[in-house]
Amino acid sequence: MKNNDKLKIYKKGYDYSYTIGTYPTIELLKARPHSVRELIIHSKLEDLSVIESMCDNKISITYNDKVFSRLGVNDKCLVLGVFQKYGMQLNKSRPHIVLVNPSDKGNIGTIIRTVLGFGYRDIAIITPAADIWDPKTIRASMGAFFKMNITCFNNFHDYKMAYNIHQLFPFMLGGKRSLSYESCPESSLFSLIFGNEATGLSDNFLSVGEVIKIPQTNDVDSLNLAVASAIAAYTFAQKNLLID
Amino acid sequence: MKNNDKLKIYKKGYDYSYTIGTYPTIELLKARPHSVRELIIHSKLEDLSVIESMCDNKISITYNDKVFSRLGVNDKCLVLGVFQKYGMQLNKSRPHIVLVNPSDKGNIGTIIRTVLGFGYRDIAIITPAADIWDPKTIRASMGAFFKMNITCFNNFHDYKMAYNIHQLFPFMLGGKRSLSYESCPESSLFSLIFGNEATGLSDNFLSVGEVIKIPQTNDVDSLNLAVASAIAAYTFAQKNLLID
Repeated sequence: MKNNDKLKIYKKGYDYSYTIGTYPTIELLKARPHSVRELIIHSKLEDLSVIESMCDNKISITYNDKVFSRLGVNDKCLVLGVFQKYGMQLNKSRPHIVLVNPSDKGNIGTIIRTVLGFGYRDIAIITPAADIWDPKTIRASMGAFFKMNITCFNNFHDYKMAYNIHQLFPFMLGGKRSLSYESCPESSLFSLIFGNEATGLSDNFLSVGEVIKIPQTNDVDSLNLAVASAIAAYTFAQKNLLID
Repeated sequence: MKNNDKLKIYKKGYDYSYTIGTYPTIELLKARPHSVRELIIHSKLEDLSVIESMCDNKISITYNDKVFSRLGVNDKCLVLGVFQKYGMQLNKSRPHIVLVNPSDKGNIGTIIRTVLGFGYRDIAIITPAADIWDPKTIRASMGAFFKMNITCFNNFHDYKMAYNIHQLFPFMLGGKRSLSYESCPESSLFSLIFGNEATGLSDNFLSVGEVIKIPQTNDVDSLNLAVASAIAAYTFAQKNLLID
């Protein structure tokens, strides 16, 4: 797509997406250089040197202010990184985060950023779910998206069949066992499973693996999804030395 | 303010604020009934019985669809709870969460909701900071705001002088000690201190109390403020039995 006059506001069906802003674009160039189609720069950008050196004359750089106004991005955004969507596969020998029907792009992005910080690199998404390729998801991930393997499955059964050695831990308020350092397994072959923001996991998951609850007072209805998954991912990562 | 035709979009200087939607309004009525000035109801609301029973004929209920469009609230919001701002004071004998210059209302609200879920009831805010009374903060807290004591201080020194028995724990990536269940004190007289979303805590805090870091990989720049504070608050709460 050299003809960037045709770059439109992202829609789910497109075979490409884009990063908004310098930081996520640099992460894109570092982690997925072969998927970059082109960079579009606003004339207000003063120093192009970092980005230029990363492109190494192999990636096309175009100045085009009109694209920025057409996409309706924030005034402070002066760099867009257009990239081709690529295939990803979960690593069979690493722990997984499984998000069942997550509906909020910001939440998915925050979770990607957080769990990457704790050493996870593999996320399964059970659809229907918000679009992982949406620029809003990628922006919320602060570019962590490009270091992560994310794969979508039509239902939980398909995921479970594909990764049948992983020990399964659904997180539900109805769990009998409380999350604690002691309750985490020694193996890193585990899957931490979280439900939708509003509805959580359905009762079907009560018979899946070992259900765990994050203890909380009666003063709140539930925890925010990004918060709950962060606490669980951190506790399990400590035990399995994903982080020091 | 019986004359709700005058209710305007919230601004910081006002002596009142309002809840948007049924759930936070019920939390307001439960926790701070004496601060409620009036409820405004949209004609589309079908069942008023829960709210009516909570008002017990002591709180004025008015139907006024115009207010909803003037405030530009979401179509699904059919209830507004207008309340007088009230004074709050931190409990000297309980643990505190200290937020230094938080700038995002959504973050503050999420933190309020999360830490209430772990048994905390006292938050100090060091200004400049986003407005805790803003309807966006209250909405993000899912109404947990009304069960929390939140006090603002002009600087950290003022907070420290007022609560000089509390053991201080600034959370900074430069900390030598890693967060863990073992590193938490047995006493509940502690303050967990977190910096601004973009800049964190200044180096001045390196000499304040015991600096703690949340271990993370080099793949991410930092953790989201709401995520970092949730992990810390949870770990400390486990040790001190704020939650079971």
